[in-house]
Amino acid sequence: MNHPTPHAALARQPLPAAVREALQARFGERFSTSAGVCEHHGRDESPFPPAAPDGVVFAHSTEEVAEVARLCNAHRVPLIPYGAGSSLEGHLLAVAGGISLDLSQMNRVLSVQAEDLNVTVQPGVTRKQLNQEIKDSGLFFPIDPGADASLGGMCATRASGTNAVRYGTMRENVLALTVVMADGRIVKTGTHARKSSAGYDLTRLMIGSEGTLGIITEVTVRLYPQPEAISAAICAFPSMGSAVRAVIDTIQLGVPVARVEFVDALAIRAINRHDNLSMPEMPHLFFEFHGTEAGVREQAETVQQIAAEHGGQGFEWATRPEDRSRLWNARHTAYFAMLQLKPGCRAVTTDVCVPISRLAECVSETERDLAASTLPCPIVGHVGDGNFHVAILTDPARPEELAEAETINRRIVERALALGGTCTGEHGVGLHKMDFLVSEHGEDALDLMRAIKNALDPNHILNPGKIFRATR
Amino acid sequence: MNHPTPHAALARQPLPAAVREALQARFGERFSTSAGVCEHHGRDESPFPPAAPDGVVFAHSTEEVAEVARLCNAHRVPLIPYGAGSSLEGHLLAVAGGISLDLSQMNRVLSVQAEDLNVTVQPGVTRKQLNQEIKDSGLFFPIDPGADASLGGMCATRASGTNAVRYGTMRENVLALTVVMADGRIVKTGTHARKSSAGYDLTRLMIGSEGTLGIITEVTVRLYPQPEAISAAICAFPSMGSAVRAVIDTIQLGVPVARVEFVDALAIRAINRHDNLSMPEMPHLFFEFHGTEAGVREQAETVQQIAAEHGGQGFEWATRPEDRSRLWNARHTAYFAMLQLKPGCRAVTTDVCVPISRLAECVSETERDLAASTLPCPIVGHVGDGNFHVAILTDPARPEELAEAETINRRIVERALALGGTCTGEHGVGLHKMDFLVSEHGEDALDLMRAIKNALDPNHILNPGKIFRATR
Repeated sequence: MNHPTPHAALARQPLPAAVREALQARFGERFSTSAGVCEHHGRDESPFPPAAPDGVVFAHSTEEVAEVARLCNAHRVPLIPYGAGSSLEGHLLAVAGGISLDLSQMNRVLSVQAEDLNVTVQPGVTRKQLNQEIKDSGLFFPIDPGADASLGGMCATRASGTNAVRYGTMRENVLALTVVMADGRIVKTGTHARKSSAGYDLTRLMIGSEGTLGIITEVTVRLYPQPEAISAAICAFPSMGSAVRAVIDTIQLGVPVARVEFVDALAIRAINRHDNLSMPEMPHLFFEFHGTEAGVREQAETVQQIAAEHGGQGFEWATRPEDRSRLWNARHTAYFAMLQLKPGCRAVTTDVCVPISRLAECVSETERDLAASTLPCPIVGHVGDGNFHVAILTDPARPEELAEAETINRRIVERALALGGTCTGEHGVGLHKMDFLVSEHGEDALDLMRAIKNALDPNHILNPGKIFRATR
Repeated sequence: MNHPTPHAALARQPLPAAVREALQARFGERFSTSAGVCEHHGRDESPFPPAAPDGVVFAHSTEEVAEVARLCNAHRVPLIPYGAGSSLEGHLLAVAGGISLDLSQMNRVLSVQAEDLNVTVQPGVTRKQLNQEIKDSGLFFPIDPGADASLGGMCATRASGTNAVRYGTMRENVLALTVVMADGRIVKTGTHARKSSAGYDLTRLMIGSEGTLGIITEVTVRLYPQPEAISAAICAFPSMGSAVRAVIDTIQLGVPVARVEFVDALAIRAINRHDNLSMPEMPHLFFEFHGTEAGVREQAETVQQIAAEHGGQGFEWATRPEDRSRLWNARHTAYFAMLQLKPGCRAVTTDVCVPISRLAECVSETERDLAASTLPCPIVGHVGDGNFHVAILTDPARPEELAEAETINRRIVERALALGGTCTGEHGVGLHKMDFLVSEHGEDALDLMRAIKNALDPNHILNPGKIFRATR
């Protein structure tokens, strides 16, 4: 695979024998250096070439994580936290070798504080598992990236999903963390109080730090009462622009829509094939409304009227839970459905997010770019947030396709930044967006981030080569 | 005044002549060393003894702030940002001397992005001024600490107020900042996109940093559509416990109440006197509901029923805008009304916030403490968040009263921490809660905060002596 490898420059040292022996003695079968296990931990859902670690530790407790950190820090060995493996930006790749710390077996729901609408979990708990385990509490956890990601990974990338327009992202929904620092110290950030002005916001500093500042070993998140009533609907539009303008009006009017997702005609075709559905191959919005019976009806009527004003056709309702599930499953599997438009492909996924007033402009100019490309480029988006994804489907054996995908991505990002937006709404920087980070924030802000990195991980053992180019 | 002075240990150097001369040359009349101006800038609403700076600069631009920072940094002169002067925790006191940087003349609303529901302001804009200036846009800014604080100060203390239960705090509502660092570099954090995963969350790091990491010179905050319908109500309860239990039920049921404020019998007496009202001298809840006409009616009916189940009496409606204004003005001036219960007093104000399920326990145990005190101690609270304030009214001439107030405060904080809460929900640490910060977060978390402070302000010029005890 000839994808540009942003990590080619990173020096890779062999794993010191002392570290290997210490991990073998301490973790036995839970430390593996087998090629299969290492290769599995050296890839994710990104288009980057795999980069296997030298070994994988399957941790069972915060104390074990601290032990591994102390050992790696003493020997300057890279340490990469690993959750569900669903990163789209190469976060998990061991580009400088070292140890992959698999947290997927730390997957217990530790305590449900139903009266406080909170839950505390280990980092390997996935979002679906969490909702399954708390379903009898009358509460739910709304944040739903496409994959069944782990809560630790969702913290690390500041993830969101389809419900963010109503319920916020991981930034707004994490109350407290337990974090193992590079030197093995165990820090608790935040409390279970809803708000606090007690010192620097270490919780928010860790959210979105992509494993480069600390390893998250416990997470307390907010839950929400399951709404009394839920209704969902899909609506076809004559163009992307008209669909997006309907969303803008909805947001500006303050309708508390729970979900509003854009799916373009090509993505609809992919979903139809994958899920055996027969939606018209036109741009669609998928809506969901949460509230009381009367409130949901009122919201839906308002939105239906807005949609009609923008040429929306056939507002089709899914009121039965099984119909809603089918609809949202289709949306959540869209990524995998899209990959099947081009068998054997890998997707370069864009993730820009712009102020809502600039969304129509951003999307329609993007549409023009894509029309000029030979690559299939379906679009889906959390448009209520101003966030959308183009999945640029490339043949990994054809370097010219990967290069074209990068060119498209670059144009989309530059456009989004010019419109006051961000290069990544929810996927993170990883290996992919380091240069865009500088364009977005400026060198001085990047220096600040690096100063924090140096202060908290002076030996740069934590997920090296991610977010910033390695500079010691 | 014999209040324990936590800053007695800080060394105070005279202002270097070079700094004085440079500021005089650069700022002319906008640099003052007059005793009156300095004394005014050395006090706030806290019970701490004043500590005047050596001079005050009235800044007009980000560039000017950067110039002052560079100068102070070069000469190791303390620099204390000053907004509206309404801190309750001594944030503004120049405990190590130096320059007070008055930002109150940077008070322009720079741009209203009505279509994006954002506004960008200079840091001296106050919350009332902002709402006045945007009132024709159909939007409003919900965060409302008791005082008419400046937006810069509200960022610095991670402020909230009566609407936080519905709209969040400054933590959730700031999109982007311009910050002048200790060395004069100007950094822009965040973008105008609703969400982002682009690197470390510098915005949230600055929110709540109390002027110790950087000087905020521009703020972009979220706005909200003015609700189609608003209604407000007050309701008397037989006891604090019953009122609090009504709130807990309301939150747990997921009613999207916009405001729910607790006011105890003594605070009601103070408000009655101050505002010439005649509410029964019993514990009260003040409610406000935002939404559509039907939605507001539905919420209010649900809450009225919950209140009745807890012995709430006489749910009294304020539907006319002028009645609502009177009600909320009364709530907002409660602090000053309470001070008048004891002429000449200063208030030591507690600010704990606990998980909602522990609020009844926290409040009723606190009530027992207060019953044993000779000091008047009215209580008000943003109970929907689990946050309440006891205003312990002390005679500044009587050290034994100040000591008793501190003893009460300490007991309340220790109780809140034991219940999983925080020592400060919205006022900040300032000079007052440094030891509690350690109890709340632990030494390792404090070390992390100090590491960040050292990395960003290596000469410790920014608001020294606040949040942590000065340690170089």
